[in-house]
Amino acid sequence: MDWTIMAVPAVGAVALIFAWIRAINVGKKDPGNDKMKEIAAAIREGAMAFLAREYKVLAIFVVAVAALLFVGNLGGSEDGGPFKHPMIALSFIVGALCSGLAGFFGMRVATAANVRTTNAARTNLNSALQVAFMGGSVMGLSVVGLGVVGLGGLFGLYWGTGILGVPAGQQDSLRDVVTILSGFSLGASSIALFARVGGGIYTKAADVGADLVGKVEAGIPEDDPRNPAVVADNVGDNVGDVAGMGADLFESYVGAIVGSMVIGAAAFSSAQSATLLPLWLAGVGIVASVIGTFFVRVKEGGNPQTALNVGSLIAGILMLVGGFFAVRMIIPAEGVQFSEDGAIVSGMNIFLACVTGLIAGTLVGFTTEYYTSKDRAPAQSIAADSLTGPATNIIAGLGVGMRSCALPVVWIALAILFAYKLAGLYGIAIAALGMLSTTGIQLAVDAYGPIADNAGGIAEMSGLPPEVRERTDNLDAVGNTTAAIGKGFAIGSAALTALALFSAFQTQVSVNGKPLVMDLADPTIVAGLLLGAMLPFLFSAMAMQAVGAAAFEMIEEVRRQFKSIPGLMEGKARADYARCVDISTAAAIKRMVAPGLLAVLTPVIVGFGSKALFGTPAALGGLLAGVTSSGVLMAIFMSNAGGAWDNAKKYVEEGHHGGKGSEAHKATVIGDTVGDPFKDTAGPSLNILIKLMSVVALVIAPML
Amino acid sequence: MDWTIMAVPAVGAVALIFAWIRAINVGKKDPGNDKMKEIAAAIREGAMAFLAREYKVLAIFVVAVAALLFVGNLGGSEDGGPFKHPMIALSFIVGALCSGLAGFFGMRVATAANVRTTNAARTNLNSALQVAFMGGSVMGLSVVGLGVVGLGGLFGLYWGTGILGVPAGQQDSLRDVVTILSGFSLGASSIALFARVGGGIYTKAADVGADLVGKVEAGIPEDDPRNPAVVADNVGDNVGDVAGMGADLFESYVGAIVGSMVIGAAAFSSAQSATLLPLWLAGVGIVASVIGTFFVRVKEGGNPQTALNVGSLIAGILMLVGGFFAVRMIIPAEGVQFSEDGAIVSGMNIFLACVTGLIAGTLVGFTTEYYTSKDRAPAQSIAADSLTGPATNIIAGLGVGMRSCALPVVWIALAILFAYKLAGLYGIAIAALGMLSTTGIQLAVDAYGPIADNAGGIAEMSGLPPEVRERTDNLDAVGNTTAAIGKGFAIGSAALTALALFSAFQTQVSVNGKPLVMDLADPTIVAGLLLGAMLPFLFSAMAMQAVGAAAFEMIEEVRRQFKSIPGLMEGKARADYARCVDISTAAAIKRMVAPGLLAVLTPVIVGFGSKALFGTPAALGGLLAGVTSSGVLMAIFMSNAGGAWDNAKKYVEEGHHGGKGSEAHKATVIGDTVGDPFKDTAGPSLNILIKLMSVVALVIAPML
Repeated sequence: MDWTIMAVPAVGAVALIFAWIRAINVGKKDPGNDKMKEIAAAIREGAMAFLAREYKVLAIFVVAVAALLFVGNLGGSEDGGPFKHPMIALSFIVGALCSGLAGFFGMRVATAANVRTTNAARTNLNSALQVAFMGGSVMGLSVVGLGVVGLGGLFGLYWGTGILGVPAGQQDSLRDVVTILSGFSLGASSIALFARVGGGIYTKAADVGADLVGKVEAGIPEDDPRNPAVVADNVGDNVGDVAGMGADLFESYVGAIVGSMVIGAAAFSSAQSATLLPLWLAGVGIVASVIGTFFVRVKEGGNPQTALNVGSLIAGILMLVGGFFAVRMIIPAEGVQFSEDGAIVSGMNIFLACVTGLIAGTLVGFTTEYYTSKDRAPAQSIAADSLTGPATNIIAGLGVGMRSCALPVVWIALAILFAYKLAGLYGIAIAALGMLSTTGIQLAVDAYGPIADNAGGIAEMSGLPPEVRERTDNLDAVGNTTAAIGKGFAIGSAALTALALFSAFQTQVSVNGKPLVMDLADPTIVAGLLLGAMLPFLFSAMAMQAVGAAAFEMIEEVRRQFKSIPGLMEGKARADYARCVDISTAAAIKRMVAPGLLAVLTPVIVGFGSKALFGTPAALGGLLAGVTSSGVLMAIFMSNAGGAWDNAKKYVEEGHHGGKGSEAHKATVIGDTVGDPFKDTAGPSLNILIKLMSVVALVIAPML
Repeated sequence: MDWTIMAVPAVGAVALIFAWIRAINVGKKDPGNDKMKEIAAAIREGAMAFLAREYKVLAIFVVAVAALLFVGNLGGSEDGGPFKHPMIALSFIVGALCSGLAGFFGMRVATAANVRTTNAARTNLNSALQVAFMGGSVMGLSVVGLGVVGLGGLFGLYWGTGILGVPAGQQDSLRDVVTILSGFSLGASSIALFARVGGGIYTKAADVGADLVGKVEAGIPEDDPRNPAVVADNVGDNVGDVAGMGADLFESYVGAIVGSMVIGAAAFSSAQSATLLPLWLAGVGIVASVIGTFFVRVKEGGNPQTALNVGSLIAGILMLVGGFFAVRMIIPAEGVQFSEDGAIVSGMNIFLACVTGLIAGTLVGFTTEYYTSKDRAPAQSIAADSLTGPATNIIAGLGVGMRSCALPVVWIALAILFAYKLAGLYGIAIAALGMLSTTGIQLAVDAYGPIADNAGGIAEMSGLPPEVRERTDNLDAVGNTTAAIGKGFAIGSAALTALALFSAFQTQVSVNGKPLVMDLADPTIVAGLLLGAMLPFLFSAMAMQAVGAAAFEMIEEVRRQFKSIPGLMEGKARADYARCVDISTAAAIKRMVAPGLLAVLTPVIVGFGSKALFGTPAALGGLLAGVTSSGVLMAIFMSNAGGAWDNAKKYVEEGHHGGKGSEAHKATVIGDTVGDPFKDTAGPSLNILIKLMSVVALVIAPML
C-alpha cells in the first residue's frame, strides 16, 4: 500500500506512544500523604464507576445500532443504487470504541494527575503546571492519536485490501470506501452525545447540589470535606469536563476529517489526493501539537496563561507551515478538477480555505472571549445590573448571550462564503478541519483546567496549607482565553462540519438518478426546517430539566445528611460521600438516554417517513438545515450566557459592587447557577447534536 | 365595478360604524368622582402624549420609505421584467395610516373605558364587564374594519379603475394589482413593529420600575398612589397592550389577506375568484365577530370567562358556516386551476384548508394554555422548583419555555403539510387567514384585559371600597384561556403567513426568466439561513436590553422621588407622576428605532448585496427561511416561558408552597420579572419581525 496512506496512522501511533509515556511519567510522581491519597482514591473510584456504568449502557446501544446497520446494508447495493456494505457496522463499532477508549485513558490519567498536581503545588508553581498539563496532554494526544489511527487504519483496510468488494487502491473505489468509513464518525458522534449529556448532568447536579446546600444554606466554603456532595462534585469535573469534553472533541475532530474525505471523494475527478489530504492535515496537526506541548512551562511567579498561549501559538504556526507543505505534497501541481463542471481548484486555494477556517475560528474565539471575559464590558454590565437584584442580572445575562450570537454567526457565514469561493464544498470542509487540526494541544489545555480544579479541591479537603491552594487556584484561573478560543473553534467547526456532512448527505441521496433538490420554496422542506429548528429547544429543555431533577435529588440528600449525621457539621463525623456519588451517577445514566435517542432517531423517522409520504427524503434535508441553524445559535447563546454569568460573579468577587457577600454578589451567584446547565450541559451538547443528526442522515442515505 | 369587490369594504365600513357607536356609548357612561376623573385624565394624557410622539417619529420613517418606494418604482417595469409602479408608495402610506388610526381609536376608547369600568364596578359585575368589553370591541372592530376598508378600497381603485395602467377589471391584471397592493402590508407591518417594540419597552420599563422599587424595596402595594411610577405603569398597559397589540394584530390580519391574494393571483389561471376569496373570508369573519360580541354578558356572581368563551365560540361557528358559503359563492363549482401544472383545486379543498388553519390555531392555543396555565403541571413545576430559590425557578422556567416549543411546531408543520396537500401554497395562505378571520372578537377579548387592569389601578389609586377592586380583579383574572388561544392563533398564523409571503417573494423574483431556486445544498443559501436565524436573537437582545436600560432609569427616578419628596411615603405629598411618564416615553421612543431599522434594513442589504456579489438574491431567501424558523421558535419560547413564570407566581400567591411573602414567592417574583420583557416585549415582536422581513423582501422583489 502507498506509504502516503500508512504514514498518517503511524503518526497517530507515535502520538499514542507519547501519551502513554506521559501517563507513566505522571504515575511516577508522588501522590502525597495518606489523606490526599484517600480522597484521590474516592474521586477516582467514583469517576471510574460512572464510566463503567455509562459504557455498559452505551454498549447496548452500540450493539443494537451496529446490528441494524449490518442488516440494513446486507445485500449490498442494487444496480445503479448507491453503494452499501454491511462493513459499515465495523466502522461504527471502531468509532465508538476509539471514542470510549480516549475517554477512558484521559480520565484515568486525569484522576491520577489531580492529586499529584496538588502534591507538586506544595513545592512550586511550575512543577504543578507540568503535572497538570502533562495529564491534560494525555487526553489531547489520546484523542487525536486514536482518531487518526482508527480512521487511517480503516481507510487502509477498506481501500488497500479490497475487502469491500471494490477494486483495491483504485481512484474509482474511493467514493464507496469513504461511504463505509462514515460509520466511524457515527460511532464517535453517538458516544460523544451520550457522554456529553451524561457527564454534563452528572457534574452540574453535583455542583448545584453542593453549592446550594453547602455554600448557601449551611454557609461552609467550597470543597469543604463536611459537604457530602464534595466528592461527587470533584468526580463531576472529571466525567463532565474531561471524559465528556474528550468525547466531544474526538467527535468534532473525526467528523471534520470524515466530512472532508466524503466530499473530496465525491467532488473531484482527481479524488485520491483530495481524499487523502484531510488525513495528512490531521497528521501535521498532531506533530504540531506534540511539539507545542514542549513549550508549556512557567517559572515561579510567572503567568501560566502565557505558557499555555505560547504552546498553542507555536502549534498553530507549525500547523500553518506544515499544512502548506502537506498541500503541496499531496495536491498535484496542476490542482484538482471538479468532476461536475471540470473547474480546477489549485492547491493554494485549498490551503487558503484551511487558513480561512483558522482565521474564522480565531475570530469566533476572540468574540467569545469578549462577551464572556470578566475584564470586558458585557460581563461587567451584568455585574452592574446585579445591583438591582437577581431579576435584572438574569435579564442582562440572557441579553448578553443573545447579542453575543451576532458576530460569531457573521464570521461563520463569511467563512462559508470564502471557503466555498476558494474550493467549493470541499473548501468548507477543509476550513472546518483547519479549525480543528491542533485539537491535540487545544484539548490538552482544556483538560488541564479540571485537573487543576480537582487539585485545588483535594488541597482543601486534605487540609493542606493555604499557599498550596493559592498555587492551584492560580493554575485554575488561567486558560480562560485559550479555552474561549477553543470553544470558538468548536462552535465554528461544528457549523462548517454540519454543513459539509449535510451536503455530503445530499450528494448521497439521489431521486430518480438526479441529486436531491431541497428548494426552500417547497413547503415540505420548510415544514422540515421548522421541526429541525425546534429540536435544539426540546433537546436543551430535556438536558436542563434533567439537571434540575438530578440536582433536586442531590439537594435533598445533602440536607438529609446534614440533619441526620450527628457531628458532621463539627467535623467529627464523616459524610457519606458514596451516596451522593451514586445519586449523580444514577441520575446521569438514566436521564442521558432520552435526549440521546431524540437525536439519533429523529433523522431516521423523518427520513423514512418523508420518503414514504412524499416519495423523497427532502424533508430530512430541511430538518438538518433547521437543526444546524437554530442549533448553532442556541449553542452560542447558551455557552456565552453561561460564561458571562460566571465571570460577572468573579468580577463582583474581586471586590466590585460590594464584593463577596453583598446583595449584588448574591444576585450573581444566582445567575451563575442558571448558567451552569447552559454552558456545561445543554450548550456544548448542541454542537454534537447538529453533527450527529447530519451524520445519521449521511449513514442512512444509501438506504433512503 | 363588480359588487363582489365593493361588498367587502362595505362590511368593513359597517364594522367601523359599529365601533363608532360603541365608542360613543362608552363615552356616555359616568366616569365617576373627581378623584377618579383626575387619575384617568393623567393616564389618558400620558398615553396620548406617547402616541403623538411615537407617530411623529414614525411619520418621518413613513415619508422616507414612501419616497424610496416611489423613486425605486419609477419608470415602471422594463420589458419582460416584473411589474413595478410608484403607486406602491400610496399602498404603503395607506397601510401605515390605517394601522396608526386603529391604534389611535383603540387607545382613545380604552382610556375612556378604564375609568368607566371602575365606576360601573361600583354597581355590579356585568355592567363593568359590559363597559370593558365594549371598549375592547372598539379596538377589535376598528382593526378589522380599517383593514378591509383600506385593502378592499385600494384593490377596487387599482383593479377597478385601471389607474396603474393595466386593463381595469381584467383577470390578467390581477397579478400586477396585488403586487402594488402588497405595499399596504409593508406599511402595516413596519408600524406594527415599532409600535410593539416601543409599547413593549414603555410598559415593561414602567412595570419593572414600579414593582422593584415600590413593591420590593418600599413594601407598598401594587397601584399604590404613593408610587411615582404608578401612572406610567397604567399608561404602559394602554400603549403596550392596547395600541401595541392592536397594531400587531392589524399587521397579522392584513398580512394574511395580502399573502393569500398575492398567491391567489399568481398561482391560478382562474385567478379572479382566488384573489377575491381572501377579502370575502375576511368580510365573513367581521360579520361573525360583530354578532359574537353581542353574546358576551354575565350575571353578578357569574363567570366572565364563560361569557368571553361563548362570544368567541359563536363567532368561530358562524365563521365556519359563513366561510363555507363564501367559498361556494366565490369559487366556481368546477374549482380553480393551477396555471403551472393545470391541476384543479376544488372549493371544498380550499374550505378545508381554512378549517385546517382553524384547527391548528386552536391546537397551538390549547398547547400554549397547557404550558402556561397555573392549573397545569408545567407552571406548577416551576412553582415547586422555586422552593430551592430563584436559580432553580429560572432554570425551570427556561426549561418549560423551551419544551413548550415542541408541540406547537408539530401542529404548525402538520398544518403546512395538510394545507399544501389540499390547495398548494394558496392553501397555506388560506389556513393562516382561517386562523385570523375572527380577529375582530379575538382582539376585543385581548384589549378588554388591559382595560380591566387599568380599572383596578384606578380603583386602588382613588381609594374606592375593596369590593370595587374585587370586581375588577375578577374581570382581570379571566380571559387567560381566550388570550392564550388568541396567542396561539397569532404565532401559528405568523409562521404560515411568513411562509406564504416568502413563497410569494420567490415567485416574484426570477433569475434569467426562471423562478428563483433556493436549494439548501447551496452554501450561499445556508450562509443566509444562519444569518437569518441569528436575527431573532440579536433583535431580542436589543429589545430586552432596551427594557433593562429604561427600567434602570425608572428605578433611579422612583428612588430619587422617595428620597427627595418630603411626606410622600406618608401620603401627604403627591408624587411627580409626569416625570416617570416622560422617562418611559423618551426611553421607548429612543430605543425602538434600532431594532426596528434592523428588521427593515437587513433584507434590503442582504437582497441587494447578494444580488451584487453572487448575481442572485437567493441568499435573501435563505435569510427569510432562517429568520422564520428561528423567529417562530424564539417567539414561542419567550412568550410561553414568560407566561409560565407569571402563572407560577400566581399559583404560589394562591397559598401554595408558603404563599405570599414566602421564600418561594420571592423566587417566583424574580421569575415573573425576567418573564416580563420575554412575553411582552421581545416575544410578540418576533411574530411581526418574521412577517415584516418577508414583506420587505416581497416589496423589493421587483427591484432585484
